[in-house]
Amino acid sequence: MASIFSRIIAGEIPSYKVAEDERHYAFLDINPLSEGHTLVVPKKEIDYIFDLSDDDFAALQLFAKRVAKAQLRAIPCKRIASAVIGMEVPHAHIHLVPIVCEGDLDFKAKKKELTPERMKEIANAIAAEFK
Amino acid sequence: MASIFSRIIAGEIPSYKVAEDERHYAFLDINPLSEGHTLVVPKKEIDYIFDLSDDDFAALQLFAKRVAKAQLRAIPCKRIASAVIGMEVPHAHIHLVPIVCEGDLDFKAKKKELTPERMKEIANAIAAEFK
Repeated sequence: MASIFSRIIAGEIPSYKVAEDERHYAFLDINPLSEGHTLVVPKKEIDYIFDLSDDDFAALQLFAKRVAKAQLRAIPCKRIASAVIGMEVPHAHIHLVPIVCEGDLDFKAKKKELTPERMKEIANAIAAEFK
Repeated sequence: MASIFSRIIAGEIPSYKVAEDERHYAFLDINPLSEGHTLVVPKKEIDYIFDLSDDDFAALQLFAKRVAKAQLRAIPCKRIASAVIGMEVPHAHIHLVPIVCEGDLDFKAKKKELTPERMKEIANAIAAEFK
């Protein structure tokens, strides 16, 4: 069965899309740690990120770097932190989280609740900065 | 002034080395979240990881992937999680953390206290699996 991320990429499940190329897709996490928290996934459905080939892994990381640059331009924050935990959904994904201080990368923190309008606004702001 | 990581790489400060190549260095975090928690750094002293050139960034990520493969072979765990926060030391570094469950990547958790002998043993076990 297709993973939830493959269904998002296919458009079967709606998402707040931030960026896309032939091999990758980036969209807002719907349970964000901060405004602009984005997930970057390879379109190839693979569970464990380190099982990607070197070529696919490097391409995914470089795509994530471009997304992080866009986030830093679009979102008021100090840095973009990144994390791969890899146990929530069996489809490799990189969390890119705008942070202001070290403690902001805390997956046990209460998630932000944002309106659909705000999520759309944030996604558009990052998308506009994606190069 | 050289960052603490540059001084570790230069051997001025001792470390539990796990792996090294011309451009990168990997060593055990002395305040580990779990046994085998490793830091991967570029020898080039740069503060924010996304300021690395694409070539340097991809090379760093691929080196980290090799370290993560070695960790998974050497350390009893389910996966290697990764994170870049980037505010602790002004020298880019990737945390590679052996985890058993999702909640294990928790930078606010109490750090493991391991003896120097145990740290040495772990570093050697990972180093032996590094290819």
